[in-house]
Amino acid sequence: MLSLFQKTNSTVANLLKSNLQSTIRGQKKRWVYLFQDIEEAENLYNGDWDKVRLLLGGKGANLAKMYKIGITVPPGYTITTECCNEFLKLGGKFPQGMWDQSNEALRVVEKMTGKKLGDPNYPLLVACRSGAYKSMPGMMDTVLNIGLNDKTAEGLCKISGDPRFVYDSYRRLVQGFGAIVLGLDDEEYEHPLAQYKKKYGFKYDNELQAENWIELTRQFQQITKNISGIEFPQDPIKQYEMSIKAVFNSWNVPRAIQYRKQTGIPDHLGTAVNIVTMVFGNMGEVDSGTGVAFTRNPSNGNKEIFGEFLFNAQGEDVVAGIRNTLPISALNDQLPGCYKQFIQECTKLENYYKEMQDVEFTIEKGKLYFLQTRDAKRTAFARFKTMVDMVEEGLIDKKTAIKRISPSDVDMMLHPQFDPNVLKKAKKQGKLFGKGVAASPGAAVGRVYFNADKCEEMSKDGPVIMCRPFTKPDDVNGMFASKGLFTAEGGATSHAAVVARQFGTPCVVGTGLVIDDEEGVATNGKITIREGDWVSVNGTTGEIFKAKIDTIDVKLEDQKDLLKILGWCDEFCAQKGTRNIKNGPNRGLMVWANADTAEDALRARKYGAQGIGLCRTEHQFLGDRAKYLRTFIMSEDKDDKKKALDKLRELQTKDFEELFIAMTDLPVIIRLLDPPLHEFLPDLLELTREVYELRGKGQKDEEKETLLKQAEQMHESNPMLGLRGVRLVIIKRELVEMQATAIIQGAINAKKKGYNPDPEIMIPLVGHINELKELQPEIDEIAKKLLKKNNTKIDYKIGTMIEIPRACLVSGELTKYAEFFSFGTNDLTQMTFGYSRDDAEGGFLLKYVEDGILPCNPFQSVDQIGVGRLIKMCVDEGRESKPQMDIGVCGEHGGDPKSIKFFSDAGLSYVSCSSLRVPVARLSACQAILD
Amino acid sequence: MLSLFQKTNSTVANLLKSNLQSTIRGQKKRWVYLFQDIEEAENLYNGDWDKVRLLLGGKGANLAKMYKIGITVPPGYTITTECCNEFLKLGGKFPQGMWDQSNEALRVVEKMTGKKLGDPNYPLLVACRSGAYKSMPGMMDTVLNIGLNDKTAEGLCKISGDPRFVYDSYRRLVQGFGAIVLGLDDEEYEHPLAQYKKKYGFKYDNELQAENWIELTRQFQQITKNISGIEFPQDPIKQYEMSIKAVFNSWNVPRAIQYRKQTGIPDHLGTAVNIVTMVFGNMGEVDSGTGVAFTRNPSNGNKEIFGEFLFNAQGEDVVAGIRNTLPISALNDQLPGCYKQFIQECTKLENYYKEMQDVEFTIEKGKLYFLQTRDAKRTAFARFKTMVDMVEEGLIDKKTAIKRISPSDVDMMLHPQFDPNVLKKAKKQGKLFGKGVAASPGAAVGRVYFNADKCEEMSKDGPVIMCRPFTKPDDVNGMFASKGLFTAEGGATSHAAVVARQFGTPCVVGTGLVIDDEEGVATNGKITIREGDWVSVNGTTGEIFKAKIDTIDVKLEDQKDLLKILGWCDEFCAQKGTRNIKNGPNRGLMVWANADTAEDALRARKYGAQGIGLCRTEHQFLGDRAKYLRTFIMSEDKDDKKKALDKLRELQTKDFEELFIAMTDLPVIIRLLDPPLHEFLPDLLELTREVYELRGKGQKDEEKETLLKQAEQMHESNPMLGLRGVRLVIIKRELVEMQATAIIQGAINAKKKGYNPDPEIMIPLVGHINELKELQPEIDEIAKKLLKKNNTKIDYKIGTMIEIPRACLVSGELTKYAEFFSFGTNDLTQMTFGYSRDDAEGGFLLKYVEDGILPCNPFQSVDQIGVGRLIKMCVDEGRESKPQMDIGVCGEHGGDPKSIKFFSDAGLSYVSCSSLRVPVARLSACQAILD
Repeated sequence: MLSLFQKTNSTVANLLKSNLQSTIRGQKKRWVYLFQDIEEAENLYNGDWDKVRLLLGGKGANLAKMYKIGITVPPGYTITTECCNEFLKLGGKFPQGMWDQSNEALRVVEKMTGKKLGDPNYPLLVACRSGAYKSMPGMMDTVLNIGLNDKTAEGLCKISGDPRFVYDSYRRLVQGFGAIVLGLDDEEYEHPLAQYKKKYGFKYDNELQAENWIELTRQFQQITKNISGIEFPQDPIKQYEMSIKAVFNSWNVPRAIQYRKQTGIPDHLGTAVNIVTMVFGNMGEVDSGTGVAFTRNPSNGNKEIFGEFLFNAQGEDVVAGIRNTLPISALNDQLPGCYKQFIQECTKLENYYKEMQDVEFTIEKGKLYFLQTRDAKRTAFARFKTMVDMVEEGLIDKKTAIKRISPSDVDMMLHPQFDPNVLKKAKKQGKLFGKGVAASPGAAVGRVYFNADKCEEMSKDGPVIMCRPFTKPDDVNGMFASKGLFTAEGGATSHAAVVARQFGTPCVVGTGLVIDDEEGVATNGKITIREGDWVSVNGTTGEIFKAKIDTIDVKLEDQKDLLKILGWCDEFCAQKGTRNIKNGPNRGLMVWANADTAEDALRARKYGAQGIGLCRTEHQFLGDRAKYLRTFIMSEDKDDKKKALDKLRELQTKDFEELFIAMTDLPVIIRLLDPPLHEFLPDLLELTREVYELRGKGQKDEEKETLLKQAEQMHESNPMLGLRGVRLVIIKRELVEMQATAIIQGAINAKKKGYNPDPEIMIPLVGHINELKELQPEIDEIAKKLLKKNNTKIDYKIGTMIEIPRACLVSGELTKYAEFFSFGTNDLTQMTFGYSRDDAEGGFLLKYVEDGILPCNPFQSVDQIGVGRLIKMCVDEGRESKPQMDIGVCGEHGGDPKSIKFFSDAGLSYVSCSSLRVPVARLSACQAILD
Repeated sequence: MLSLFQKTNSTVANLLKSNLQSTIRGQKKRWVYLFQDIEEAENLYNGDWDKVRLLLGGKGANLAKMYKIGITVPPGYTITTECCNEFLKLGGKFPQGMWDQSNEALRVVEKMTGKKLGDPNYPLLVACRSGAYKSMPGMMDTVLNIGLNDKTAEGLCKISGDPRFVYDSYRRLVQGFGAIVLGLDDEEYEHPLAQYKKKYGFKYDNELQAENWIELTRQFQQITKNISGIEFPQDPIKQYEMSIKAVFNSWNVPRAIQYRKQTGIPDHLGTAVNIVTMVFGNMGEVDSGTGVAFTRNPSNGNKEIFGEFLFNAQGEDVVAGIRNTLPISALNDQLPGCYKQFIQECTKLENYYKEMQDVEFTIEKGKLYFLQTRDAKRTAFARFKTMVDMVEEGLIDKKTAIKRISPSDVDMMLHPQFDPNVLKKAKKQGKLFGKGVAASPGAAVGRVYFNADKCEEMSKDGPVIMCRPFTKPDDVNGMFASKGLFTAEGGATSHAAVVARQFGTPCVVGTGLVIDDEEGVATNGKITIREGDWVSVNGTTGEIFKAKIDTIDVKLEDQKDLLKILGWCDEFCAQKGTRNIKNGPNRGLMVWANADTAEDALRARKYGAQGIGLCRTEHQFLGDRAKYLRTFIMSEDKDDKKKALDKLRELQTKDFEELFIAMTDLPVIIRLLDPPLHEFLPDLLELTREVYELRGKGQKDEEKETLLKQAEQMHESNPMLGLRGVRLVIIKRELVEMQATAIIQGAINAKKKGYNPDPEIMIPLVGHINELKELQPEIDEIAKKLLKKNNTKIDYKIGTMIEIPRACLVSGELTKYAEFFSFGTNDLTQMTFGYSRDDAEGGFLLKYVEDGILPCNPFQSVDQIGVGRLIKMCVDEGRESKPQMDIGVCGEHGGDPKSIKFFSDAGLSYVSCSSLRVPVARLSACQAILD
């Protein structure tokens, strides 16, 4: 039997370690750590595991750790990431001392295994593996079988008695060396191999015999020389040295740099190199093999070892899927001792790491080696299941479980998904129609229609997808009726995106498709879709398909593990220090929701919202009701105006009553009318086209002519900075009375029915204290009078939205008239940056983010340096003059995890986001306060 | 001879004063000051004259002051402003002690005059005059002749032997009491008087005899009773008390409150009441009379007494203009002693106040009394003349002279004015055509045209006025060719207004007139003007006339007094502490100018600009050159694009060379292309109208169709927050190379011709450091290469405009790539407030300012609390990381005196404004640092 190395014993290891240390003592810097030296690295950083990983890379650190806890790993050592950095700094030279230390470590491994690199009698074979702090697909990975040459191959044949195995290994070295160290295209080898197999009638690699591999090894060496001009080195030390250098150099290949840029991994980390003794799973059909396994089920999270195994195979064969793998239990039948050991060691690993592991292992002639372990990737579902289970098993505490959940895990649990197989098929069949900004996640499928009313109408007959050049408040009825939507224009915070997220409707914007909504046709230049065609919208990836792709639905109430964890999150938030909120002083960031209707609010409440942070009253002026608002705005007749206003008051009172009933016992912030009035009129440009074309024809449509005149009158060159928010209600003062009355009367009605309303009235777009001074007393008086008239008491608050930079600069003043603040971070970001989000997100902002001029889209994640500074100033100065006031966020950022962390640190009381983001926000709010 | 009072002697006065003081000692508060008690008031405030004026009002304080320096004034006393406030607080009751003190003071005056109030034998008559800190036309003024009743009138007849005078005086008291104290309409008396005169055939008042006045006095008393229901009080004490109360109450009449609101006088000041012994100029044709005079000529400032006099008249007769007045010298002929005394006392007053005075005086039977003195109003021209003269006379120092000049004085000196007489006539004839925002001062007259090219063309034949709905960069050629302009839309910082101010062209915007520029007609609904009509534009008042009104021209070089004072200003600025500017460390705020062309720059230099703070390169892309820029933007052909860019580079190089030559030795900041590209295309809406009307007719204009497509493509919903400034040049990167090359090559060319160019390149609209990081090294490299290639050295700087709120929040970072900052306060104001200035100034902002929601238009005077806070943060943090850096302002606010004071205090290096504002800014910069 081939004994690849003698049994490691700690005396030998310690002796050898001392030798290495004495070598190092004479030198300035330690570049090499044997796996058994892990404690020294740990001591260096006082046990900070993260720093050890930074030094040794993830793979090296874990191999050493396994060694330390008594798991069998092949002997080996790690050359540090510091060495990589120094090597690169020196322009491709090993730093002083490294080569000596590396040779010393090699000597130790040789002694441990009883073999020697390049010794024809007892040749040591090693693998050279890269291993950065974080796994990086952009880099070279592994050179296997270093140490083989014509002579050691012969020697190995003698020892193993298996020349087929030896020469297969040898040609793998030649191929790997050429591809990875010398940078040749792997196809340069694979193509001749395929031709060879064809020529001799072989189908699978394992049909080739020793003589075939010997011939191919020679052929591969010739290919290497022909193409690279470099002879494959027969000197194993040369192989070893060149492989290490190649791994170091791979840190700076363009692909790796690009990958780091995309993923935000810093350039200065460097990669480590792991030199690991080769073990072979392909040394027999009975007692050798290789496998990968998860310590729990990665699909459903069940507590059962889940893995695949192949007898007489090497690691890559399992992954390649060439042969059918066996379930891990098959091992029990054939090698029950190995299986038992494997199960024990898996448990040991899980207990040690306190996390589900994903391991690679090899059995060489009945001996089990672990080659790698790492925290296991799993589905979101499995993530929640394993975390809850581990807490219940006592393996981890709740805090740890929460920290390990990512916001996207929560997201995944809430949105319907496409069936992955059907999706794959659709892509293969070329059904991909368009791609844009993934604006609201989830999968939706239905027949496509191109205008709101049609969508609403057709939705009665089956699921509908809405397709528009862009959307306006006028389109909301259609958006509401549709299962999904996509637009040609707009960015992640365009009207379509914001409303879709609020409704939880999957949405893709900014696809750049050519959409003719009048003709009912859209095209990407190749494929065309027409009214009534089936399309599928993937709001998670931003893809649109001209196909009907099946979806898999999810229900929140069924997700018991998710609900359990969110419950824990709420508990932690409630335990944390003092905040200025109304429902008790001892809790963390609360999560409220943005909701405009009772239906919306009920869903938000189901998702765990503890209040409504923003009810946009303008959404109540849409559809049939738009005509009343138009009359109020436009009519010259005082009587008509008044009637319209009376009608609106009546309708809004009912709306608010329902909202207060839905949210009984919880606060509801209602914002006064905010958007510019022209949004309630048809688009000016479109009207101009219609009217002037008609005029050209010598015709006049009186109604359109009138509307055009009105739209022209309302036209502003920069509506975002125009007559809206508080400015609008100051000019159209009757709106204040109408809305304040509707809100308070709605609350009174709800109370009369036995509910407990908690109304808060919010004045938007305030920039100067006098704007509040103008309105607050008026609203207050209306409220007081109404309550007195109804002989009832309801606590109400009047506050302001903070969305103008100036408001942040004078927040101390504003508290004189505002009982609460709520940041509108969309507008605040627009004005602080001077970006019109609708224009920018499809335009220069896209380029800015792509080119790295901006670290991220500030409309997605709050700009902490600029906008954040204003927010902090506002909170600090607001609280200085009114310490107990509620301060929240009701902009888009309220649902963004990174922003939530910032808001929590800034001392806000709550974040308010669309209902569907509430679960994510509950997680993020908790994570923000966990140490 | 009637001796109204005994000669005042200081022993008596002192004695009496002690009496009053002893009265006061027993009480808490002093409410009354005899004129002779002025020193006590002064001691109270350690000689702070302003505080004395606050206590006694301007009139009272000056009367007392005259008394003190030995000018003869009628005996009297002042009831303080504090008393007024207390009176109002008590709901119309005199505060405790006031009545006693007032009576005590009255006793003193009675002793001084030897008369008694209400004594039929020797009746004392007094006037009751209001006198606030600042003169307030909204308040009641004076009740004369208090003390007359049926009995004292008889007594006075005996003493004076002039019943005509006595009963005229009596009816004046009844009339004045009714009108002022009881609030009756003065017409209630004037109308019966007129009827009486008509009935008896009198033309002038002085034709009426004693019996007429007796009858009228009775009639007036009846009128008083009939209308007010109150009997005219026969008790002089009652008259006296009611008059004082009426004056106090008049502080709070609506007209007064309104006036204070408009002029910014605080409500808490209150008014004083002055009780002054009556003296009579109507007691004889030879030795009595009354007059007003200025100690110097108020029109031209010459050092000569300038005044008017009437024998046998009362003060109001001079002002009323009923009789022809005599020049003051007439007095010398008839009463040479009086005249000599008058001249001497005028000199005494001027020497005492060290300022030109405006006095009222009366001569009663040969005895001269001064009734009032105050600092004289005068023309701007006279202001400069008198200030320079007084400095040269040694009467005041330069600092005092500078402090007394107001920015509007400077303004007046620089703009042509309409001939006031012709103007008056035009108004009377109903030629006023429109009124709007006075956007750029001065008077202009010419024939009106409605488009830019026509204006340019017609300007060859004579002066032209441009009339547009609004203006765009395309219109600049016409604006340049026109003498004045007016628009229907836009506010004080609209395109029209900004460009007009820069050119110094009188301009009125936002007139709301209906302008049909295609038809060449404008109307206000009543009057219509057509192409070629003569119109006059008053940019100082905002008025437009359909008339040809003569103007009076001004030339800076002729204004030697103005130039002398501005020179002093520059000297003071140069003496003041350290600033971070390049031309030496020891000076105050510098004044630079915004100028786009060499011609502009030369004018700025002539006006005293010490650098160019902003050259807008986009103005060089207008007119003929626009086509090159359009080709560059729009062409799909690379070659065409390149050719267009080459042409622009060539043209700009020449422009910059000329600019550097004009500004040799002084810094010139050139801003990279800033406005959104669509500004160089025709208006989208207009194009849409044209194209669709044509389409309706079944026609297609290919060029317009193409332009429309391009304009649609470039359209942004909020261009102000869109693709412009640094964003634009990052996207259209070739512009950077083109402009940087043109600037540096222009400087090299200028240097080759022996000039000393000092170029600075400014990157606009920066909000994130990475924008600078992207461009600064590129520009720097271009400059270095060009200089090396030309083997020459020129210092240049690269800096950034600060106009995005975020830039202020990260200014410390920006210094890494910016060598200077220049605030663009227009945009900074827009974004900090969230106001689109073009929309806002004609819309809600107007209402905000009118209603006092905003204290002033923040585009005219910088908002110190909000925008100013950002500016201060930026300056402080910028200087912290780069202490020696230049920081200036190049926005509109750079020419606004209030803003300049703020910028000076904030530690800026310079302000840059349009050339015509440079003199004003020089004054303001100096005033900002004078203690």
